[in-house]
Amino acid sequence: MLPKTAVTPDTHTVPPATFSHGVRKGNILQVAGQVGFLPAEDGKPPTPAGPTLREQTLQALANVAAVLEAGGGSWEDAVMIRVYLTDTGHFAEFNAIWNDYFADLREAPAARTTVYVGLPAGLLVEIDALAVLG
Amino acid sequence: MLPKTAVTPDTHTVPPATFSHGVRKGNILQVAGQVGFLPAEDGKPPTPAGPTLREQTLQALANVAAVLEAGGGSWEDAVMIRVYLTDTGHFAEFNAIWNDYFADLREAPAARTTVYVGLPAGLLVEIDALAVLG
Amino acid sequence: MLPKTAVTPDTHTVPPATFSHGVRKGNILQVAGQVGFLPAEDGKPPTPAGPTLREQTLQALANVAAVLEAGGGSWEDAVMIRVYLTDTGHFAEFNAIWNDYFADLREAPAARTTVYVGLPAGLLVEIDALAVLG
Repeated sequence: MLPKTAVTPDTHTVPPATFSHGVRKGNILQVAGQVGFLPAEDGKPPTPAGPTLREQTLQALANVAAVLEAGGGSWEDAVMIRVYLTDTGHFAEFNAIWNDYFADLREAPAARTTVYVGLPAGLLVEIDALAVLG
Repeated sequence: MLPKTAVTPDTHTVPPATFSHGVRKGNILQVAGQVGFLPAEDGKPPTPAGPTLREQTLQALANVAAVLEAGGGSWEDAVMIRVYLTDTGHFAEFNAIWNDYFADLREAPAARTTVYVGLPAGLLVEIDALAVLG
Repeated sequence: MLPKTAVTPDTHTVPPATFSHGVRKGNILQVAGQVGFLPAEDGKPPTPAGPTLREQTLQALANVAAVLEAGGGSWEDAVMIRVYLTDTGHFAEFNAIWNDYFADLREAPAARTTVYVGLPAGLLVEIDALAVLG
């Protein structure tokens, strides 16, 4: 039987329910939806990196990256990234931040779907990723 | 060529369009979005388990589980669960129901993404799952 | 190491950010969210096939199909199709268009999740797909 492994970076809070920040089975590494929460600190509730789209996007991307790396991969292995924004007016700024962030990618970029949804108050963006390792 | 198999539990209505409740190809088992409809009864339209988040969540989870099992797997094989709620105010109650439901999971929990969307009138939750078998 | 390949049909505009319309790694082929944009024309901005749900749905399906085919697959290989609509009132018409479109499918249909989200002004539908090749 293929082992199934939870992936929990040191920087992450315990998930607020029975799910894993990342999980690996075979060569599939799935990253759960990450928002712009700062690295966990004992006794402090999850805290967004800031109120702006830029702060939250960079932190959410860092959080996805942390799970990919803790799972033995990187952005280079991502085949799909799902982006959930809360405001269609954020699309252009989000893409500018994204393009800077991924400027040094060597492999083909992942596919992406972007849709506009509701998120808990104060959160502007959520991002998850599917990677195929190896 | 890898066979591709539709997965249709006995408890399920025929999907309202040309898609499968579940489909398996290789070791990938994908479960379509499940809402809180009760097991199908001949001549009766699809009927939610009840008006509450608890009733619909437990039924939607049971419906996903039925597809996973009919496809040769179980929650233990799920690597990603997507949760679509309609109201951010439902998050805490949803997680409490979820945690009870998954209390006996032996393998690492799946990753999860939760977002808030629109659903057809009367439906409060939709859930789908990706499993890697074997 | 498994090669990771970007999939870009001739008919497609360059994506508006660092992502691929499709990406293949191993036997996984992921298609990015496609909307109802007409085939790209030099010097023209992306243009929807028309204002109606029918026009945009058929074009979005054609765009997903183009990526599947450029990646070495087809709808027959799709295991999951995600459908993002903007209005619950579109469900019945969407399914009628969908059922006609998939009338000749030989393999088991993909699983599907349909949810209602926001999309940029003028766009009524977005569709992505996960395929397992071979």
